[in-house]
Amino acid sequence: MSEKEIPYKIYLSESEVPKAWYNVRAEMKNKPAPLIHPGTHQVLKFDDLRPIFCDELVKQELNDTDPWIDIPEEIRGFYRMYRPSPLVRAYCLEKKLGTPAKIYYKFEGNNTSGSHKLNSSIAQAYYAKQQGLKGVTTETGAGQWGTALSMACAYFGLDCKVFMVKCSYEQKPFRREVMRTYGASVTPSPSMTTEVGKKMNAEFPGTTGSLGCAISEAVECATKNPGYRYVLGSVLSQVLLHQTVIGLEAKAAMDKYDIVPDIIIGCAGGGSNLGGLISPFMGQKLRGERDYQIIAVEPASCPSFTRGVFAYDFCDTGHVCPLAKMYTLGSEFMPSANHAGGLRYHGMSSILSQLYHDKLIEARSVEQTSVFEAAEYFARVEGILPAPESSHAIRVAIDEAIKCKETGEAKTILFGLTGTGYFDLKAYEAYNDHKMSDYIPTDADLKKSIDAIPHFPGNLM
Amino acid sequence: MSEKEIPYKIYLSESEVPKAWYNVRAEMKNKPAPLIHPGTHQVLKFDDLRPIFCDELVKQELNDTDPWIDIPEEIRGFYRMYRPSPLVRAYCLEKKLGTPAKIYYKFEGNNTSGSHKLNSSIAQAYYAKQQGLKGVTTETGAGQWGTALSMACAYFGLDCKVFMVKCSYEQKPFRREVMRTYGASVTPSPSMTTEVGKKMNAEFPGTTGSLGCAISEAVECATKNPGYRYVLGSVLSQVLLHQTVIGLEAKAAMDKYDIVPDIIIGCAGGGSNLGGLISPFMGQKLRGERDYQIIAVEPASCPSFTRGVFAYDFCDTGHVCPLAKMYTLGSEFMPSANHAGGLRYHGMSSILSQLYHDKLIEARSVEQTSVFEAAEYFARVEGILPAPESSHAIRVAIDEAIKCKETGEAKTILFGLTGTGYFDLKAYEAYNDHKMSDYIPTDADLKKSIDAIPHFPGNLM
Repeated sequence: MSEKEIPYKIYLSESEVPKAWYNVRAEMKNKPAPLIHPGTHQVLKFDDLRPIFCDELVKQELNDTDPWIDIPEEIRGFYRMYRPSPLVRAYCLEKKLGTPAKIYYKFEGNNTSGSHKLNSSIAQAYYAKQQGLKGVTTETGAGQWGTALSMACAYFGLDCKVFMVKCSYEQKPFRREVMRTYGASVTPSPSMTTEVGKKMNAEFPGTTGSLGCAISEAVECATKNPGYRYVLGSVLSQVLLHQTVIGLEAKAAMDKYDIVPDIIIGCAGGGSNLGGLISPFMGQKLRGERDYQIIAVEPASCPSFTRGVFAYDFCDTGHVCPLAKMYTLGSEFMPSANHAGGLRYHGMSSILSQLYHDKLIEARSVEQTSVFEAAEYFARVEGILPAPESSHAIRVAIDEAIKCKETGEAKTILFGLTGTGYFDLKAYEAYNDHKMSDYIPTDADLKKSIDAIPHFPGNLM
Repeated sequence: MSEKEIPYKIYLSESEVPKAWYNVRAEMKNKPAPLIHPGTHQVLKFDDLRPIFCDELVKQELNDTDPWIDIPEEIRGFYRMYRPSPLVRAYCLEKKLGTPAKIYYKFEGNNTSGSHKLNSSIAQAYYAKQQGLKGVTTETGAGQWGTALSMACAYFGLDCKVFMVKCSYEQKPFRREVMRTYGASVTPSPSMTTEVGKKMNAEFPGTTGSLGCAISEAVECATKNPGYRYVLGSVLSQVLLHQTVIGLEAKAAMDKYDIVPDIIIGCAGGGSNLGGLISPFMGQKLRGERDYQIIAVEPASCPSFTRGVFAYDFCDTGHVCPLAKMYTLGSEFMPSANHAGGLRYHGMSSILSQLYHDKLIEARSVEQTSVFEAAEYFARVEGILPAPESSHAIRVAIDEAIKCKETGEAKTILFGLTGTGYFDLKAYEAYNDHKMSDYIPTDADLKKSIDAIPHFPGNLM
């Protein structure tokens, strides 16, 4: 097929919405390490996790053998309202850069949650409904995940209790109102409705909260209320699994036009969007069928891959959750308050961590100002205002395209554009006013939080 | 084609982006009345309008004879970045309502401007660039049009000066930041940069501005700065012309599946989106080929069609613009401060006004709370948070679908979903907090502003 015939946007038909999620763990030689109990360090089994998570989701979390997991028809029905998402050829960006590179991006922002998060929230809400639960609890920082979960719960008629980090609750009233419009109850965290919250408020009067504390509150709320379970929007293997619809669709669209990416780029916070995008390509790589350069992009202010350690660590600051083996900066690590948007998590998906450890993917960290420069450049030529998180991937995609200009190589670049920045205009304002900070943690900062990672035989060797 | 085969979203291919705009005036027996000079009441010609508007746009404004006007390839190139927009079958809404009606909506919100406004801004920016101008000026209230124009100017490398009504400038900092990100300069109006602005500030110290004043400032700025022209986002016939891409695509998508709408519904402020949606259907109606019920929906708080008069009136409160013959509440009419979103304009497109006068379209006014009830209902079942403006059309579409449930008629309903409500969460917050007002102007309110419409022989008979 000739170059000319590739449209700006490749849309698959609705019948091509994937029928199964692809479970990359099944093809990994070195499996991601299992979750363990924070006290006993015993490997957690189905029955240990059931009180917190929905049964079916626990099964998915523990399943590292089945390569394909069927997507129930009700979930596919919801997916068809906003999927398949377009694979966009960035013709205007290529022209503006004057690069011989061919740039594609899979755009997940064309839904009201504004991001890929909806791919997993609808699955998690569905399984909660199937189990006959009354509702689910969760935490949200910037608000993307809370919005996506509210939408999913409204669709299935489930109650949705969101603990929103207090500073976001106050600074992002619009995100809060979207969730309320979808019928969710939104509580600023730390609240006085949980023991963890009361304790935090007593110890640190006037605290504006943290994601770690909100997680602890949401878990407590789920375990104390009959008919409720806790759900999470990233990091877990089940979430990465749901996000593979991104990669499956991207690959199907590329296959249709005989396009093969040389480089695949995604931003990485908890890692679910990047993991979802790369999974089917990684499958080929693991089977030795084809090689791809895969780049995880993280903020220099929260550099889990590039400056963290590979160890078992707490998933939350409240230390009520299981331990996961991952690249981590330590659960007490707090990125600079000046850092905008998401990608603030101290750890990383255990699947991606293992792949990175095995040198199957690489990682790069980028500074905030250069990320927003890329975001503004992209917005002006491609007509989409990107989320700050997604703009990390844009930054590296542009860098790689410029390299191609210098070397004359016509590489094919695919990156994940996970969402839009409509609720991140505070950060854009800081950039427009030249008030953006590029604070990077010092070695001493990192040593402190890394030293707090639990020490036990075999960990942190 | 069987019912089953109609997808959730009908996407045309990019080669089906319309090649020409459809100029419905060419087929109207009773043409819309021409613009006249506010002082002399003489019909305005090409040379009279050139100092304010771009040459090519003046030609389009005055052209009521050519049914098709070619879309330049550069504009089609930009259209292909976000068009064709999807025609969505509202399966979930139908099911939830339990109606036999078939509901379709043409969704124009999947672009960063968040609305249909981009369809005209890119055309206007293109012609300004072609004429070798340095830049354009405009006004914006809620900010949708300013955003769309900023995006278009960034694409063509034109300077863009936006006068933003001061209360919006202060209350909607995020809209302002989007425009700045696209490189526009945004000035709160009334400003001290124009004579009109200085006069307003002197007469009404502390005023938070009005759309009418911002228009006057933008026109003054354009006429005083060499190489600049003024552009407008609605009301004018050229804008309605550009918006016909909405109707042309909607009709092509419906034709592809042998779908024929019985009822076509759109919200009406200045009228360009509704006019654009209905134009090709109206063409059939004017030629006697097929009949459609067409409903313009306006807010009860700003009821130009349902309670206004058909007369020549000022287009702006500053009275620097030409007079247009239209349904109007008088240029001094101010909708209640509690009225959310757009659709606040005192007048109406002269094309739609003539069609309404000739009983080819009907009009309905709806109250604010019931509009937001419909918006919330729609958001929860269809997964898209609609703009308050668009929600006026949703309200009447739902009303008509409920009527079908009562009568058992399986009518086909098409409505225009012009945009998303991501920047309108203040209004949603008022609704969520049960603080929404339904103020409707009294007869005395309307008499006052209608009495201020210019009196001259033949007007206001």
